Amino acid sequence: MKNNNPVPPHALPIKDNIDHLLQRIQTGHLNYSGLIDACLEGVKHSSAAHVFTKTYAESAQAVARETDALKKAGVALPKLAGLPITIKDLYDVSGEVTHSGSLVRRKSMPATEDAMIVSRIRNAGMAIIGKTNMSEFAFSGVGINPHLGTPQNPCDPVDHRVPGGSSSGAAVSVALGLSVAAIGSDTGGSIRIPAALCGLVGFKSTMARVPTQGAVELARSLDTVCAMTRSVRDCLSIDAVLSGAPLDVKSRDVKGARFVVAKTLMQDELEPSVAKAFERTLHLLSQQGAIISEIDLKELNEIAQINAPGGISPIESYSACKDFVDHESKQMDHRVVQRMLMGKGVSAADYLKLLDARKAWIARMKQILEPFDALISPTVPLQAPKTQALLDSDEEFFRVNRLLLRNTFAINFLDGCAFSLPMHNPDELPMGLMLSACAGLDARLSEVALGVETSLNFDH
Amino acid sequence: MKNNNPVPPHALPIKDNIDHLLQRIQTGHLNYSGLIDACLEGVKHSSAAHVFTKTYAESAQAVARETDALKKAGVALPKLAGLPITIKDLYDVSGEVTHSGSLVRRKSMPATEDAMIVSRIRNAGMAIIGKTNMSEFAFSGVGINPHLGTPQNPCDPVDHRVPGGSSSGAAVSVALGLSVAAIGSDTGGSIRIPAALCGLVGFKSTMARVPTQGAVELARSLDTVCAMTRSVRDCLSIDAVLSGAPLDVKSRDVKGARFVVAKTLMQDELEPSVAKAFERTLHLLSQQGAIISEIDLKELNEIAQINAPGGISPIESYSACKDFVDHESKQMDHRVVQRMLMGKGVSAADYLKLLDARKAWIARMKQILEPFDALISPTVPLQAPKTQALLDSDEEFFRVNRLLLRNTFAINFLDGCAFSLPMHNPDELPMGLMLSACAGLDARLSEVALGVETSLNFDH
Repeated sequence: MKNNNPVPPHALPIKDNIDHLLQRIQTGHLNYSGLIDACLEGVKHSSAAHVFTKTYAESAQAVARETDALKKAGVALPKLAGLPITIKDLYDVSGEVTHSGSLVRRKSMPATEDAMIVSRIRNAGMAIIGKTNMSEFAFSGVGINPHLGTPQNPCDPVDHRVPGGSSSGAAVSVALGLSVAAIGSDTGGSIRIPAALCGLVGFKSTMARVPTQGAVELARSLDTVCAMTRSVRDCLSIDAVLSGAPLDVKSRDVKGARFVVAKTLMQDELEPSVAKAFERTLHLLSQQGAIISEIDLKELNEIAQINAPGGISPIESYSACKDFVDHESKQMDHRVVQRMLMGKGVSAADYLKLLDARKAWIARMKQILEPFDALISPTVPLQAPKTQALLDSDEEFFRVNRLLLRNTFAINFLDGCAFSLPMHNPDELPMGLMLSACAGLDARLSEVALGVETSLNFDH
Repeated sequence: MKNNNPVPPHALPIKDNIDHLLQRIQTGHLNYSGLIDACLEGVKHSSAAHVFTKTYAESAQAVARETDALKKAGVALPKLAGLPITIKDLYDVSGEVTHSGSLVRRKSMPATEDAMIVSRIRNAGMAIIGKTNMSEFAFSGVGINPHLGTPQNPCDPVDHRVPGGSSSGAAVSVALGLSVAAIGSDTGGSIRIPAALCGLVGFKSTMARVPTQGAVELARSLDTVCAMTRSVRDCLSIDAVLSGAPLDVKSRDVKGARFVVAKTLMQDELEPSVAKAFERTLHLLSQQGAIISEIDLKELNEIAQINAPGGISPIESYSACKDFVDHESKQMDHRVVQRMLMGKGVSAADYLKLLDARKAWIARMKQILEPFDALISPTVPLQAPKTQALLDSDEEFFRVNRLLLRNTFAINFLDGCAFSLPMHNPDELPMGLMLSACAGLDARLSEVALGVETSLNFDH
């Protein structure tokens, strides 16, 4: 596993994936309490500024102590028991107000119960160390939050670069080694974009796999509850907890795997470094026996047309946040407000037509993609941009936001599933490779992703 | 089973429920070809005017001949093989234009495949004798179709009374004994209203039980594919074919069954005859040991508020029929156009808010209704009104339409399931008793409905 993390390795509580971490615990080099303490210590480090909106030191330490005690007593533990995890600031925790990265929700009623996935994480025995910062209402792929601050991408210790969003704090919490996994959400790319820009693995499962109960809504037709981690296997371990339905998956050699590259849209406007890394990756996979086809897939150009009347995300997010946008927009990120307002004037009839057109498009895409194991593309066409330029200019922000979301959103629009895997070399800023498939093909895609991860980790 | 059918009994090909019909066939008093021929003969009778929009004499006769041959050869047949059934004019039959009771669909493309339920009916070996007339686009509870004609309710051979709608021809096809069952659809009561007004049993199953694939859409959040027949048991036999998932149901004595009567809405504006019949029925059930509670259920008054911004059906039907309503409304029933246009100005945000409010309402209703086996009410507050008065006056039409849909729509809004059973005496015009429950409780409700049917058939 490559790691471009600038934090000195000795400062990282978690340096590797879950299995290696568990080995260190099994061999007595580490106990759960020590691990959680180290994570909570790391939370205070300046590199973690703006990463957390809340921490749960006491309860996390209590979980760790209990896990240590159970282990000592010889009790068989669930695999992930005692391990640190973070949750995005849009999941309900009983008794707390859920802010969703926004000031306007401060006056909202406290949640009366945990979100479904919070319950499932607790039932798995994991230690939630904190809630992570995010783009306001999860509505941008950049990760900037003008009111709560923007976490610094650990890939560059000198210049402040964006971590990607909307699950910005989530990504940084893992990249800094403070957590084995971060539960985020993915409506247009909010797991995969920060995974790509921070050098992590992100798995946007098929939307229907995990219930959204107790998650603040952004766009009901697209919102997906999912996570990012340090490896594909770790993503699958977390997915098993979130979904309650573990995927039956064996690693599959890339030899004979059928990949398809789209000539349309997904390779447009690539930064030279990304174009080079993508080409290098395709070459590598091909050398190892993968079958790589290229097709036009002009259908990808239709997304913009179908989505033209306002766009699903603006329409649905405006509805979800109507009262705030109509009455408290001055306290909101004006860029978020601007995008939500695109959905305001849309009629119910046009919205329903849009949903129908999307459904028909998905059916056509399904037929086209059927012969392939995965659609392969860069996750995002850029490496992490510097934050200041995006803070300074709306125009630059929207240009970058559009580029960051373009490839990932296509898969949300498809109601598909996708992995983002690191495809950069150790001396490069992080870049992501996206492997995508249609709805419900999570198991097959995961097998291929495991194989690709093995192929790419040539330096491991 | 009571029967107020004015057609002389000797003219009825089908006088009783499916089991009795099969007995006549088993005992050699009837064969399938004879049965289908008699039905096709009945289709030409003046009482069947405006009932069918199309008949399938040849294919129905072929199915009957084949069934007779298989029976003769000793081949085990599916229970419903060879029996006549009708389908509402909104289900696709491969190669045909599906009109949905409208002139404006004449230029539509022919269907390229059978609707899912048409395939399932064919696979069950049934003989489809024809497509039945309906309210235009299924959008009225009265059953009047100004362009295609209005079937006469067989309950009154003298005065033309409406059959109820929107599955008008469907109901009359069964009431005239031309079919063992009629597949209709129920978006606001379109199965239960004509069942009540024509003296039949109608079963509006939980929407999710039967796929709508190949059915012309009226309102996507409400459209339910279901049927009416001459008995509860027959409805369950047909439901098994439509859903592909037979309900596991045993008849249950009404003794100890827990019914709840709503003081709000459902007993308002009852015609005296309906009030009397409902009271008589409650008394009868109570005498037989049913436990009947009465509660306010003021939540029923909220339907109108929640549904106020346009209404789900107008919003969704306007979207489904936008091109017709915007450009060809002069060829449409102006009353249908008027109702669809109520959905035109509604914003996507208000529509989504409406869906959310409905969802929350359903959750509250579920809690309230949980202790009971069925909500019990008159299906409709009226007996079949005379047709002419409704043709003459929009005001009277809309008054009656509102009343006919009021109780039944509440159950569609609930995403529930419901039976309408005849509750009239032999000397009365038909009246319906509605037994309703929340989504997914179809099996429990069916058991109670079987018991109630037995109780009410005291004259049988």
